[in-house]
Amino acid sequence: MKIDLWLSVPEPENTQVFLIVRKEGSSSGQRVFPMEAVAEERFHFQTTMNQGWGLYFYYFKVVRETNGYETIQYYGFKDQGGEGKIYGSEQEVLPYQLTCYQKPEVAPKWYRDAVFYQIFPDRFANGNPDHIVNQPKKNSFIYGTEEDDPYYIRNQKNEIVRWDFFGGNLKGIKEKIPYLKELGITALYLNPIFEASSNHRYDTNDYFKIDGVLGKEEDFRELITELHESGIAVILDGVFSHVGKDSRYFNISGLYGKHSGAALDPKSPYRDWFTFKQYPTDYKSWWGVADLPEVRKDNPHYQEFIYGDLDSVLAKWTTLGVDGWRLDVADELTDDFIAGIRKHLSFYQEKILIGEVWEDASNKIAYDTRRRYVFGDHLQGVMNYPLRQQILDILKGYRTLQEICEEMIRYQENYPRDFYYNQLNNIGTHDTERILTMLDGSLETLDQAWGLMFMMPGIPCIYYGDEAGLTGGKDPENRRFFPWQSINQALFKSCQKWVQRRKKFDVLKYGEFFPFYSQKQQLFGIIRYTEKAYVIYALNLSNQEQSINIGELSSPLAYKGDYDVLNRIIEGEILAPKGSLFISDSW
Amino acid sequence: MKIDLWLSVPEPENTQVFLIVRKEGSSSGQRVFPMEAVAEERFHFQTTMNQGWGLYFYYFKVVRETNGYETIQYYGFKDQGGEGKIYGSEQEVLPYQLTCYQKPEVAPKWYRDAVFYQIFPDRFANGNPDHIVNQPKKNSFIYGTEEDDPYYIRNQKNEIVRWDFFGGNLKGIKEKIPYLKELGITALYLNPIFEASSNHRYDTNDYFKIDGVLGKEEDFRELITELHESGIAVILDGVFSHVGKDSRYFNISGLYGKHSGAALDPKSPYRDWFTFKQYPTDYKSWWGVADLPEVRKDNPHYQEFIYGDLDSVLAKWTTLGVDGWRLDVADELTDDFIAGIRKHLSFYQEKILIGEVWEDASNKIAYDTRRRYVFGDHLQGVMNYPLRQQILDILKGYRTLQEICEEMIRYQENYPRDFYYNQLNNIGTHDTERILTMLDGSLETLDQAWGLMFMMPGIPCIYYGDEAGLTGGKDPENRRFFPWQSINQALFKSCQKWVQRRKKFDVLKYGEFFPFYSQKQQLFGIIRYTEKAYVIYALNLSNQEQSINIGELSSPLAYKGDYDVLNRIIEGEILAPKGSLFISDSW
Repeated sequence: MKIDLWLSVPEPENTQVFLIVRKEGSSSGQRVFPMEAVAEERFHFQTTMNQGWGLYFYYFKVVRETNGYETIQYYGFKDQGGEGKIYGSEQEVLPYQLTCYQKPEVAPKWYRDAVFYQIFPDRFANGNPDHIVNQPKKNSFIYGTEEDDPYYIRNQKNEIVRWDFFGGNLKGIKEKIPYLKELGITALYLNPIFEASSNHRYDTNDYFKIDGVLGKEEDFRELITELHESGIAVILDGVFSHVGKDSRYFNISGLYGKHSGAALDPKSPYRDWFTFKQYPTDYKSWWGVADLPEVRKDNPHYQEFIYGDLDSVLAKWTTLGVDGWRLDVADELTDDFIAGIRKHLSFYQEKILIGEVWEDASNKIAYDTRRRYVFGDHLQGVMNYPLRQQILDILKGYRTLQEICEEMIRYQENYPRDFYYNQLNNIGTHDTERILTMLDGSLETLDQAWGLMFMMPGIPCIYYGDEAGLTGGKDPENRRFFPWQSINQALFKSCQKWVQRRKKFDVLKYGEFFPFYSQKQQLFGIIRYTEKAYVIYALNLSNQEQSINIGELSSPLAYKGDYDVLNRIIEGEILAPKGSLFISDSW
Repeated sequence: MKIDLWLSVPEPENTQVFLIVRKEGSSSGQRVFPMEAVAEERFHFQTTMNQGWGLYFYYFKVVRETNGYETIQYYGFKDQGGEGKIYGSEQEVLPYQLTCYQKPEVAPKWYRDAVFYQIFPDRFANGNPDHIVNQPKKNSFIYGTEEDDPYYIRNQKNEIVRWDFFGGNLKGIKEKIPYLKELGITALYLNPIFEASSNHRYDTNDYFKIDGVLGKEEDFRELITELHESGIAVILDGVFSHVGKDSRYFNISGLYGKHSGAALDPKSPYRDWFTFKQYPTDYKSWWGVADLPEVRKDNPHYQEFIYGDLDSVLAKWTTLGVDGWRLDVADELTDDFIAGIRKHLSFYQEKILIGEVWEDASNKIAYDTRRRYVFGDHLQGVMNYPLRQQILDILKGYRTLQEICEEMIRYQENYPRDFYYNQLNNIGTHDTERILTMLDGSLETLDQAWGLMFMMPGIPCIYYGDEAGLTGGKDPENRRFFPWQSINQALFKSCQKWVQRRKKFDVLKYGEFFPFYSQKQQLFGIIRYTEKAYVIYALNLSNQEQSINIGELSSPLAYKGDYDVLNRIIEGEILAPKGSLFISDSW
């Protein structure tokens, strides 16, 4: 593929411009290309990124002859996206990143069109008469009422000693399909559902069983069938980096008999999955959490177990009807392991594979290795965790609007286009404080937060209960039981409105994107547009109605064409009411 | 009443003996009476304890003339009961205690004949279909399974932050009446059942309501009716020293609305029940436990509330059919308060009032005050807590048999006869380690422990689940749920056997009592006898069968006549098998 690079240089006379490019991992080092001066102060160079897929880093060298001597300046990256920065020294210059990927990762249409809803299964709904809890685990606790505040039961060493359950289950989710349909949901992301010891189930005990508290496999089949009949897809949380210490595979306390797991039986078939520094007490575990023994992702037996053709975990649940997977702690999985999952998942139709990556996935370094996430035949997208903070920063004024816009644009610039559009966006998950709490309980501001999320490229995902008024700080407060008896109807309608807009306006799913702002007037807006239509969402964050002039707006624009769009949409002035403004139109 | 005192003095020639008596609380000080030398080295004095009921303390002064000069010795109490001790100095001599009471406290026949069973209601049985828990409290936890190990949920400051419930209830007890009848139980002692926050319910929130987790008042009526129809009486735990901080009366967190309790409403009618050092945060509480605000037992309103004629707590539940009360922490109640309860309880027929006193109730000093427990028109008996330790000491060899026997005899000597026979005996309660655990899991030794308890004067009380094999250390381990699925049948039969013996042999209920022992041969025995019959229970604690000679047996005998009985029963030798020997016969 050919790449055209332009650089505008004022007073281009007696000036030479060079493009300096380095392909990461290449032995050929930097390459320097002189650029051609073309019309209107612009320099141009066309090249092919012919050193294969990966990250290319580049910057510009501008050599000027003035009064007989040379001055040299460099132009490169400025921390975030958008416009760059002039550097005086080549040692200081930060290069631009160019992400060269193998192929576009076009996600299935159902996914690109979806409105997701994340369910933490223990906390959503109990479908049993009298809300009896299915198969409570020995030495666990059940909350007295579904209105209880979640609480970690710890000993004096601060270790969790008993797990606490509300007892939400699969029948409960099935029972609430009408509710989800009313909200407009078209896909679910379920936190782990396989047999485990904890209520979050990230400590898998058996990858082939539905956790008894949630129900039986039959309940899951019925749930998937009914969800699909209702036009709702399901993706699961794939937790493959580690297992539970009491799992069938590790079995440190003998929960699975005397001859099952690696920790209890030196001849266990699972022995080679684990790394024992001293058998059996000292073993490698996830972030040193002894509850979660780490699995060797380079172990062929484990790879076959997780994603092999036959009888694998992936095969079983995907065949059963699961529409995709969200890979937990992707940074902890090897690239080969993820690629293996992707390859096997691609044997099925219309599946999606996304990963939990908290930072820029295009250039993430984990354990000293640059990760392959975005380059194709790997993840199709990631959870868009940075978005939440960007939205909070906009609404709470924690950063300048310029900084936020530039950060937004950086992701757009760094990610392959489809990867960017495949992100699963959220303004809250089971790992973060409840958004309503972060917004000081303001229903209006939460409406705006949803607005920003639903306006962004990527697929919106609502964390269960945010639309019902759940509040709370970090875990465990963010995992309250769904308040079926006291749903906040104003919030529900606000959320439902955004879901409807998203579904109604294709431009929100596929349109080009750019943000704009006026720091002075405290205005922030997002524009989405296609050839045919556009949508603009503007937030007047000040306390008064304002008249906004196009000339006073800024944007760290990613594409030249965006300027024209902004000019086309906003002719002259708009009157921005206090609060938010949503305009959709066709050209 | 006339009292005859004898003292045997060897070589009584040239000897004068004086009785020195002091009535506690009397202004007349010590009185000295010369004793009369009668036949066979014995001195005698007859007196009336004419300074009213209370404790009389006495000892003997023996003055001997030998070769022209006098020697003086004193004879008094030796730490425990039985034989006394010779002292050389009057300052050192410990006096004997003589307990002079107002009238015999003859308990109702049902009580004297009873075999009790103590139920900790949250942990006995759940009578609901699917064992659903009735009305769980907000922010409480329910155990995942009835087999769970009880666990206190504490914060980092070691405070209990959530209460844990198994959900045993009144319907469950009713459902298990056939089981209780099979065991042979004729009375229940229920730990508290009134509305409270905790699982033990010693933190009463409403004295007029059955706790919602246990059921409704109707359930309690039905339970009492069915128990009575089955010949089973019920006594309740009366917790009148303190209330719960969230009670209707104190209501610190507003559980009972804004205008109920003393802590939330300065104009509360309950305000004067409590002692605020600084209103409302600093208040007097039971042993400084802020959860349990202490009530002023001298407050007439509170007295009327607890035991007044009309609408009082005592009236309500006693009228409803309760057969008696066990007063929790009797030491914390004033004597007048207990006497008030007793007076009002005596308006009903056949009721019993016992108290929680852990030490010798005849001379207990609490808060610098000698208590009136045993003197009549007060408690009719106490929980016999010392017995458990005596039995453990015998079976585990922690003290010499002589020391144990002397301690046993001391209680017999100090308590009025009926009070002594009215004690509610136990070898374990909700406050102590499970007896089976203390006996290292030995079923045979537990059979012997029951043997000793059932042989003793007083009413035997089995702590729920001891007969089923429950084990565990102190609270909370001693409060496991009753193991309905795995009752230890050997233990059940062992317990049932003792219940049957107790019911069959009246001598075990009414007979005279004395212990005997041979330290050398590790033999301990209890004899109960009447004019007509006797029962002997002997434990050969050694590892072999032994031939026991009557002459080698010792006893800290309380009564002269006991010698004769021992001689009549054991003529010459008995062959004591390893373990236990139970002989019953009529003369």
